[in-house]
Amino acid sequence: MLGRVNLTPVEKARTILLDALGNSAKKTETCSLPDALDRILSCDVLSPEDLPNHPRSTMDGFAVRAADTFGASSTMPCYLEINGDVAMGQMPKGSVRQGKCFRIATGGLLPDGSDAVMMFEHTIPVDEKMIEVVKSVGVGINFINKGEDIAKDSPALASGHLLRPQDLGLLAGLGIAEVEVYTKAKVGILSTGDEIVHWSESPPPGKIRDINAITLSGLCKRAGAVVTDYGIVTDSEESFFETLERASNENDVVLFSGGSSVGMRDLGERVIEKLGSPGILVHGVALKPGKPVIIGLSNGTAIFGLPGHPVSAMVCFELFVDPALRLIAGISHPEKSMRPTVNAILDRNLNSAAGRLDLVRVQIQEQEDDLPLAVPVLGKSGSISTLSRAHGYFFINEASQGLNKDTQVKIHLLL
Amino acid sequence: MLGRVNLTPVEKARTILLDALGNSAKKTETCSLPDALDRILSCDVLSPEDLPNHPRSTMDGFAVRAADTFGASSTMPCYLEINGDVAMGQMPKGSVRQGKCFRIATGGLLPDGSDAVMMFEHTIPVDEKMIEVVKSVGVGINFINKGEDIAKDSPALASGHLLRPQDLGLLAGLGIAEVEVYTKAKVGILSTGDEIVHWSESPPPGKIRDINAITLSGLCKRAGAVVTDYGIVTDSEESFFETLERASNENDVVLFSGGSSVGMRDLGERVIEKLGSPGILVHGVALKPGKPVIIGLSNGTAIFGLPGHPVSAMVCFELFVDPALRLIAGISHPEKSMRPTVNAILDRNLNSAAGRLDLVRVQIQEQEDDLPLAVPVLGKSGSISTLSRAHGYFFINEASQGLNKDTQVKIHLLL
Repeated sequence: MLGRVNLTPVEKARTILLDALGNSAKKTETCSLPDALDRILSCDVLSPEDLPNHPRSTMDGFAVRAADTFGASSTMPCYLEINGDVAMGQMPKGSVRQGKCFRIATGGLLPDGSDAVMMFEHTIPVDEKMIEVVKSVGVGINFINKGEDIAKDSPALASGHLLRPQDLGLLAGLGIAEVEVYTKAKVGILSTGDEIVHWSESPPPGKIRDINAITLSGLCKRAGAVVTDYGIVTDSEESFFETLERASNENDVVLFSGGSSVGMRDLGERVIEKLGSPGILVHGVALKPGKPVIIGLSNGTAIFGLPGHPVSAMVCFELFVDPALRLIAGISHPEKSMRPTVNAILDRNLNSAAGRLDLVRVQIQEQEDDLPLAVPVLGKSGSISTLSRAHGYFFINEASQGLNKDTQVKIHLLL
Repeated sequence: MLGRVNLTPVEKARTILLDALGNSAKKTETCSLPDALDRILSCDVLSPEDLPNHPRSTMDGFAVRAADTFGASSTMPCYLEINGDVAMGQMPKGSVRQGKCFRIATGGLLPDGSDAVMMFEHTIPVDEKMIEVVKSVGVGINFINKGEDIAKDSPALASGHLLRPQDLGLLAGLGIAEVEVYTKAKVGILSTGDEIVHWSESPPPGKIRDINAITLSGLCKRAGAVVTDYGIVTDSEESFFETLERASNENDVVLFSGGSSVGMRDLGERVIEKLGSPGILVHGVALKPGKPVIIGLSNGTAIFGLPGHPVSAMVCFELFVDPALRLIAGISHPEKSMRPTVNAILDRNLNSAAGRLDLVRVQIQEQEDDLPLAVPVLGKSGSISTLSRAHGYFFINEASQGLNKDTQVKIHLLL
């Protein structure tokens, strides 16, 4: 029986888990650039070359010697002879001498001798071969210098960096075709319980459809993991252990859910201990909903016995499984949730028990001229619709016995 | 030449685009539940049945008639005879009569005659057949009633809803195996310019690697779109038009980038007009960086001519293409960015031109006891590394001529 005593505080439970997992070496693999979106770099990337590798114009205009334009104005223009054209995609032929200029378009390479680009807008054509310049330009203006974007051998991206679209762009610009990244976490999912049937079946009297497998699978996929569904196992110790052992051999993380009855909880504990050391890390946390979670580690595989109630299962995923997946994925500070937050005003008084972390599901109602309202979604932890209706959640911490109406709360958004 | 005059303000340009696109009928398709994660429902879903379809215990304990326990306390317990067991996954046999109870585990179906579940914790076994009850329980306590999660024929999820993991759980619980969703937007991407080579190639002198195609492709994928890469087209009108026409026939959205020189901009305009009506919607917006963007619509396909500079291209994607993709995806209020935001304190004075929206890339530096600092990432719009180094961006709006140090700014995070 899981009473109030011996419950581990949530933060302590998470620390025990992450410390234990952190000792296992993280696996890495080589990944081609187009497949590297949203992966995490496992080593630093240095720039193999200068970007750009030649000074390039950032304007349409004329490559000039800046000194030739000094003092030019609309009342006192200077005149430059057009002595060449920079063809796009080709090295300029010849060099810009005093009193001369080359036509150049955005992206064109700066010809030798020039040290600035005069914008078209500040010139007036005199004839085919001559322009009037009505504004001066400084040295280094209107072009991007060799290595100005990134210099050869300088750090381009650091180990642990999440590869966003613009990071792939940087790597493409440097001609880096593949990168070393952490492997995606592999997660095996089991549902347990004699009362559970697959969601695609029509449950006979007394049985219910499995809600947790597809919910947990979606959460894992959003965390970047690769999911294998091991189906539904019955309450017999033999079949449970056999499937759990196979799943733990084949994955970095195994989730089983259901088995929230006393007998099933005991069974869950026994099979984890049987799988291998160190076995159970935490059994029961000071959390509502989600108290009966079991956290274990066997032969390097993290094993989570999640409560059967869908809301409790998702809360435990959020607080324990997700940080473990972030750690395996190579994200720094895996204990920190990545969910965006908004501040809101609680619309009623809420009670809570001291010594326990409460997670309260809420809907958010926009208000004019004030922070939005946080309206708790009431309902039992067996009620999946409360999670579907919720826009987010906030915590009532262990020290608190409740919150008063109009308290400002920080909502973690369930986007 | 694209000067200051005739530039369209950013919000107006976006409204023109979304209004024009909104007239095209959105396409929908049937999607199986496991594939429906992160898709958008295209019609309301009503619950086909009660969930749960029978009252179920939410505790381990005893199914009782609540009235039998009224007044029970540890000093004045009442006694109940154990008259049966609820087997998990089966309909209970028999019914609970006055003074009797059934053993029941979490998830067990409430037997006839009972109207509450007494928790194990509040009972003391007397012998095999008798318990002492030390606390009263009210009618309806510790079980979830038939239809309490969701009632038959009531709305489960509304059209336009993004299917999150918990929403798939709700649908699974209701036995809904497939849903109608909006089709994923199809996006074709072209790069233009005689100076561009594919990023996997080693560029000969004068040429540079294509940065935009892989960056834009990543941005599209993150927006849930399906991307086809049409490669690099040269600056010849014939080859450009031919590829653009094919891409626009095969996609909902086409992006071409590069061609930031005057000649290429004119070419981009001509080919969009040639493709079909209404043609060009917007050419040039009051935005820095990103001014030379071209927005068109031909035969129902949105066509974007994005600036060649990587930073400008990404900014235009963010402000115009992303909202268009959200509209096509069926998301309500597509004009609203989905990026999370944080407030920060600007670390220096910044100038800006009135009448133009400025987007300023920043790094965020955490500070103790205050909002984080927003530190602008300086660099030209041709510099992809500035985007890779940026943690987010903020706007300086059209009415402003700059911001002072210590102004609070709202950072849109580039996660």
